[in-house]
Amino acid sequence: MTEQTKVNADLQQERKKCTFNITELTNFIDGGPHMTEERRKREEKVLKEGIHIEEVPSEYLSHKEKYELAVKKACMLFKLIRRWQEEENTGMESFRAVLGGSLGSAILQDGSPLTLHYVMFIPTLMGQGTVEQQAYWVGRAFNLDIIGTYAQTELGHGTFVRGLETTATYDPKTKEFILNSPTLTAYKWWPGGLAHTANYCIVMAQLYTNGQCHGIHAFIVQLRDEETHMPLPGIKVGEIGAKLGMNGTNNGFLGFENFRIPRDNMLMKNAKVLEDGTYVNSPSSKLTYGTMMFVRVVLVNDMCNYVAKAVTIATRYSAVRHQSQPKPDEPEPQILDYVTQQHKLFIGIATVHAFKLSADWLWNMYNNVTAELEAGDLDRLPELHALSCCLKAVSTADAAESVERCRLACGGHGYMLASNLPLTYGHVTAACTYEGENTVLLLQTARYLVKAWQQAAGGNTLTPTVSYISKIYAGRRSPPWDNTIEGIIEGFQRVAAGKIGLSVTNIEKRQKEGMSYEDAWNMTSVQLSQASESHCRAIILSTYNEEMKIQAASASPELKKVLFQLVDLYVVYWALQRVGDLLRFTSISERDIEQLHRWYEDLLVQLRPNAVGLVDAFDIKDEILHSALGAYDGRVYERLMAEALKSPLNAEPVNRSFHMYLKPFMQGKL
Amino acid sequence: MTEQTKVNADLQQERKKCTFNITELTNFIDGGPHMTEERRKREEKVLKEGIHIEEVPSEYLSHKEKYELAVKKACMLFKLIRRWQEEENTGMESFRAVLGGSLGSAILQDGSPLTLHYVMFIPTLMGQGTVEQQAYWVGRAFNLDIIGTYAQTELGHGTFVRGLETTATYDPKTKEFILNSPTLTAYKWWPGGLAHTANYCIVMAQLYTNGQCHGIHAFIVQLRDEETHMPLPGIKVGEIGAKLGMNGTNNGFLGFENFRIPRDNMLMKNAKVLEDGTYVNSPSSKLTYGTMMFVRVVLVNDMCNYVAKAVTIATRYSAVRHQSQPKPDEPEPQILDYVTQQHKLFIGIATVHAFKLSADWLWNMYNNVTAELEAGDLDRLPELHALSCCLKAVSTADAAESVERCRLACGGHGYMLASNLPLTYGHVTAACTYEGENTVLLLQTARYLVKAWQQAAGGNTLTPTVSYISKIYAGRRSPPWDNTIEGIIEGFQRVAAGKIGLSVTNIEKRQKEGMSYEDAWNMTSVQLSQASESHCRAIILSTYNEEMKIQAASASPELKKVLFQLVDLYVVYWALQRVGDLLRFTSISERDIEQLHRWYEDLLVQLRPNAVGLVDAFDIKDEILHSALGAYDGRVYERLMAEALKSPLNAEPVNRSFHMYLKPFMQGKL
Repeated sequence: MTEQTKVNADLQQERKKCTFNITELTNFIDGGPHMTEERRKREEKVLKEGIHIEEVPSEYLSHKEKYELAVKKACMLFKLIRRWQEEENTGMESFRAVLGGSLGSAILQDGSPLTLHYVMFIPTLMGQGTVEQQAYWVGRAFNLDIIGTYAQTELGHGTFVRGLETTATYDPKTKEFILNSPTLTAYKWWPGGLAHTANYCIVMAQLYTNGQCHGIHAFIVQLRDEETHMPLPGIKVGEIGAKLGMNGTNNGFLGFENFRIPRDNMLMKNAKVLEDGTYVNSPSSKLTYGTMMFVRVVLVNDMCNYVAKAVTIATRYSAVRHQSQPKPDEPEPQILDYVTQQHKLFIGIATVHAFKLSADWLWNMYNNVTAELEAGDLDRLPELHALSCCLKAVSTADAAESVERCRLACGGHGYMLASNLPLTYGHVTAACTYEGENTVLLLQTARYLVKAWQQAAGGNTLTPTVSYISKIYAGRRSPPWDNTIEGIIEGFQRVAAGKIGLSVTNIEKRQKEGMSYEDAWNMTSVQLSQASESHCRAIILSTYNEEMKIQAASASPELKKVLFQLVDLYVVYWALQRVGDLLRFTSISERDIEQLHRWYEDLLVQLRPNAVGLVDAFDIKDEILHSALGAYDGRVYERLMAEALKSPLNAEPVNRSFHMYLKPFMQGKL
Repeated sequence: MTEQTKVNADLQQERKKCTFNITELTNFIDGGPHMTEERRKREEKVLKEGIHIEEVPSEYLSHKEKYELAVKKACMLFKLIRRWQEEENTGMESFRAVLGGSLGSAILQDGSPLTLHYVMFIPTLMGQGTVEQQAYWVGRAFNLDIIGTYAQTELGHGTFVRGLETTATYDPKTKEFILNSPTLTAYKWWPGGLAHTANYCIVMAQLYTNGQCHGIHAFIVQLRDEETHMPLPGIKVGEIGAKLGMNGTNNGFLGFENFRIPRDNMLMKNAKVLEDGTYVNSPSSKLTYGTMMFVRVVLVNDMCNYVAKAVTIATRYSAVRHQSQPKPDEPEPQILDYVTQQHKLFIGIATVHAFKLSADWLWNMYNNVTAELEAGDLDRLPELHALSCCLKAVSTADAAESVERCRLACGGHGYMLASNLPLTYGHVTAACTYEGENTVLLLQTARYLVKAWQQAAGGNTLTPTVSYISKIYAGRRSPPWDNTIEGIIEGFQRVAAGKIGLSVTNIEKRQKEGMSYEDAWNMTSVQLSQASESHCRAIILSTYNEEMKIQAASASPELKKVLFQLVDLYVVYWALQRVGDLLRFTSISERDIEQLHRWYEDLLVQLRPNAVGLVDAFDIKDEILHSALGAYDGRVYERLMAEALKSPLNAEPVNRSFHMYLKPFMQGKL
């Protein structure tokens, strides 16, 4: 082994200390050895193309150059995927495999202008087009004769879809729809790829025909000339400007001025406009919920990947970094030996496992409910909707906090883009807002919980994920506190039920004082969103614990031990975070709390020797991690210096600004 | 009034509703009408120069261009300040006035490469140089014959100053110091302006003379040729690369290879090396604490300014933005009417007031203690040190959370750089790490608190800010809960004392189990840092309340009412945030908590009509706010579109990447 490839001695030591088989854990996380193998093959296949290699790191480029690089890379990546599709005949699976994991973000670190073509444009055509429309448009889209995106959000309208202003007015004379943006706030705003990349777009607009508004419908709209890429007359399109992150996504705006499209361009699988302008209603509008829920379910899994990245970086760095001298005659310890550092990191490792198992569980439920839906059974849709809302909100918020905590745990070096932590935060925090703003989503779940509470009060049986409410509703008095994992989880259910109950009481009290239900709801909404969050915590804690019992059944004793230490850590951590809730709604005592503190501190000690092994097991290749602080070899300082030297500013010993400004300024001549 | 300058109707309405005189509040915050007038004059004077105006907003530039623009602007700004100094003979005051407020960050939005010359280089020369050294170097620095910075942190060494590796070895033969960076981790890393701007630098290095190490001392080192700006032989200097924010600061690295400087270049006010290499000790090393504490004290005030900016932007936007339709036949309400939104914003407004009064109080204490220091009295130094540590940690962490909460409260538009919220976060979150990492600082305060506890146990009287500990130590039993502001504040003191006491108990328990004190401390450090945070909360809450009583004594009844609503909101908010602590360490009951919830919700209702007035009173000019969402006129959507159109990508209808990559890709020819 040469000097250049040597692994940092501290990391070597850490890996020797690990008490379990790292490969076994990797296989466990992937879902079996064959899945690990498949993932690794896929990663190697993509990475050997070298698309991810940047001569000058993109953080040094101008905004415009960043976009141009993103287009180049996206084209090369999707060309590669298309080749596989042809070779392996895998259809959409190949896209999901690359875009769903961390692989896509490794290559297109700051987002891709082509993603929505595959993730929204094609799926919407398939989901909302008639068979004829699908045959024509999906073919053209798959063939890349056209590049599309999906435009819903407007400059003045986000979450509240009914409030969209863009109009599509049917003209029976020409059998066309006339698209208009009646105001500035009606401009489409945000769609990825819309600015300069897509030449087609699905536009959500208020449908008017025969003088009547029929609400929001989807239309296929050509934006740019297929040959020259020039925007068509009546189309105003451009980019919305620089953002906190994801500057490769080419988010755009779009306005219409009497822009006409053929009648056939309305997606008519559900509702139709006939040639004479007659509107024919949709059989069920609930069917369109599917895509939204799908994206939220997938997001929970994405959050795992981001947190896994961040905690791998911060843990390896903490094993390499030494600081201070608590004992006079001993060397500076690794910062990973400070309990405050362990407190910041180990919960991140446990969070990845908790989210992974919750995401898998939600995914299964989603598939079951979708199958039921197709058989015409809508019963479990509201439950799935409520779950996907709160899990999306809590997982994105927790992930953002985890990533920031990891970044701050790396001190100043975490602030460097070379750590890859700021970019990771940019992705994760965006997810707190898109696909439903988190507070709005928590309140959606709260509506479901309030209904469940009222059903419990009426003596009805509840759906599985809220059945704890009726149990607790029935036996109001708190049982003696049980200071175990199961006891804590039950405690969290008691907290959730208690908060829902209190919220309902407060709403009713305010109604009795003369408020409308809507105003009483609003006045209580801080408590309602907290109740919703508590419900979600109870779900995640119990799912993590229950699913781990099933999944880890056949694991080796060494691995099983560590896996359940993480479960314990996660549950005890959250108990300590929510000690106020537990004190209010359960019979936990001060002595129990002090025991929990001690338990927590002991768990940190137990997990300490396995910390690096645990993040190694996430098996994130250096090219995907893309971090000077987090590489497998731990050569942190060499890599930081190597990254610094890539800055174009370092290519010249003297920058021209010295002669232009600094010297004249110093000489009083500026 | 023309269409172009019209104020948004919602904002007009909000301003009409305001129940107090906005100017009175502005004067109150500034410290009197003359102070407001002076600030405004200063702002106008700087802004009329137009240095802040950017043809292409800097977010669209490349990293290198951003630096060049920052040098240009910094030179122009400091030239202006220098002119004032000459005109008005104000010395350093002019720098502080511009750099201390929001004004500097309005012009140099992403940091300045010249700041450390004024903030660290010159003050260190003044503080640590002999009279002769001051006469020579301060003159050259003020004259801008040289531009300096201050290099302490190294690639492998931050908080732990004793661990620095750079060496300065005295050679009595040539009467020179030889500077070396013995390892890669010894490279200086981070100093602002070091990369390509400064030609001189104060370097902190381990002093060796006559074969003995005497620890860290300061040396003046020339880095670059004064004429050509070329790095001198033996000097390796460059920039450290792109960061999350502050990309205009030109942070650099610096390595030495047998670089020689004259003996006179050691700053010798305190310690000396004689010509023959004899080391003469410093009379008191405590004196150097001064600068560090000064910066931390100033930081608390900076945090006010950033939070005030963020909450002004988010509040005005929330008054303009409408969303959803809770009541079927009514229009979409302003999002400011949602109680969950008020919950996110109003605490931010109160935080500005709480921090402002705490910062002023700390500033007075700092001045008193510094005066005592100069008279040789070091008694109150540890108390001030403990306070400055925890207040820096808590204020920066709270400010970062506040700014992010404001950003997320603006939904997707908050993610746009045009909102100015991401850049503001970049500044604030950096402060969580620099000038002492927050966890390290909390643990420094914890050391002081543990000592205080032990003194209380020994029956000693304690210094004022920890005197509550002896009071509570004496009467261990909790008095009946008093659900008032004063009662809550006392509750927080009880929490802090309780946590300190528990930490001490746990340390002692672990020592009895055989652990060393250092290990027992480490094992208890999560609890210790939380105790320290609780202490700081108690300080802020009581300072805010007590100082407001004094300061607001002569305010009009209308203003006084609102000011104390904010005090109430702040105290009740934190009581609800820390309900678990209160339940553990006081006799608060579930009924009290429910009353606090109701009280909190009522306060939101009371403050709602004054929300816009309260942020208007921060009186932050549009040019300083620099936000499409937050401008005084509330023309949010027009400004967002105007900002978008400044993107260079929008200058051409078709980007060249279409012809280079996209079209060939679509045609299968890439």
